[in-house]
Amino acid sequence: MKPRQKTLNKIVSGSLRLFNSHGVSNVSTNHIAEHIEISPGNLYYYFPNKEAIIRAIFAQIKSQVETLWQAEPANPLLIVQDYVRVIFSVIFGYRFFFIELPLLLRKDPVLKAAYTTFQLRFIDELSSVLLNLTQLGIFKSLQDDAMRLAVANNIWIVAIYWHCHQETRLATEQELGEHDLLKQIFCLLGPYVEDQHYQVVKQFFNDFVIAMKPLS
Amino acid sequence: MKPRQKTLNKIVSGSLRLFNSHGVSNVSTNHIAEHIEISPGNLYYYFPNKEAIIRAIFAQIKSQVETLWQAEPANPLLIVQDYVRVIFSVIFGYRFFFIELPLLLRKDPVLKAAYTTFQLRFIDELSSVLLNLTQLGIFKSLQDDAMRLAVANNIWIVAIYWHCHQETRLATEQELGEHDLLKQIFCLLGPYVEDQHYQVVKQFFNDFVIAMKPLS
Repeated sequence: MKPRQKTLNKIVSGSLRLFNSHGVSNVSTNHIAEHIEISPGNLYYYFPNKEAIIRAIFAQIKSQVETLWQAEPANPLLIVQDYVRVIFSVIFGYRFFFIELPLLLRKDPVLKAAYTTFQLRFIDELSSVLLNLTQLGIFKSLQDDAMRLAVANNIWIVAIYWHCHQETRLATEQELGEHDLLKQIFCLLGPYVEDQHYQVVKQFFNDFVIAMKPLS
Repeated sequence: MKPRQKTLNKIVSGSLRLFNSHGVSNVSTNHIAEHIEISPGNLYYYFPNKEAIIRAIFAQIKSQVETLWQAEPANPLLIVQDYVRVIFSVIFGYRFFFIELPLLLRKDPVLKAAYTTFQLRFIDELSSVLLNLTQLGIFKSLQDDAMRLAVANNIWIVAIYWHCHQETRLATEQELGEHDLLKQIFCLLGPYVEDQHYQVVKQFFNDFVIAMKPLS
């Protein structure tokens, strides 16, 4: 990797760590420079301000998610698995972004334009996956476009505001991890699964929970 | 009403209007005083800072929602109607609060303690309503405590982050109103309704949509 790219990556990943730990408003570009041990002037050479760093972080989120749309559709349940893996990686890796989302977009119209287009595409693609699973007879009652889009929107809302929900709970309540989110998503999708496929899909989610254990 | 109470109410409702329109960080106590035509010193006599005003706004939200728990349980579907009416009134009337929720709670531990207790109670009460409807044979598959709590959590997440979702959509997309949220909630609950009650519950939600039309 070229030194320029290396420094750029270091700034982005260092900023992500600080934003996740302290929130965007408590982190200045000087803090970031200090954290990754470069001079403020050197940081400024790569990014004129915090907004530019946040855009670069969003570009990482977007490129991770876009891998879902480049792959050739294989086994439809494996696509669901890919969606869960990528979305969870993004939600748990970039949690500051989703906790502060509406305020970040208010402050930066460029980010807002990029994000809103991305989100619309995501929900459309997810709705297509649900349509595919309905046409294969795995899901029921989701032939209707409006209903399917509503389910896709609910999944998206529950997933991306998951950390907001965690932060607004009592400190004494158990911390919400990947397993809990997976259960919430199963409870959004489970009742739409055709009876003869229910056990297979439930097992699929259970296997996932087991497979995720080392991560949490 | 005593003059003291009248001024206090004026400060709270004026602040709510400004926070909803501009966001908390763009509104100072001086803006609020100017907006309701009192002196900054007079405002300070009632509220030492913005945090205190936000706590007073939250107290209003809480007291509106708590009316749900004081009423004697009547027809169980009427309870659902009460829940929808109160929650929608709160979500659409106090939208800044839910858009900025995690950051507001980070800034004010007193508010955080009050809010987290309130939210926990709300989700528990909602889960009890669902249990009641399950025991009456209207809902299915919700005998299991964990599953019922997951559904109650999903309803809460979708409802309170509804404005975050609205704000993160393209400007060209249709604005999301009460009807759309009602459809989202029906799509969370609909598949758990027993077949023989499905049409009645669907009709109940449709009537609600019609009844709400003048509001939106």
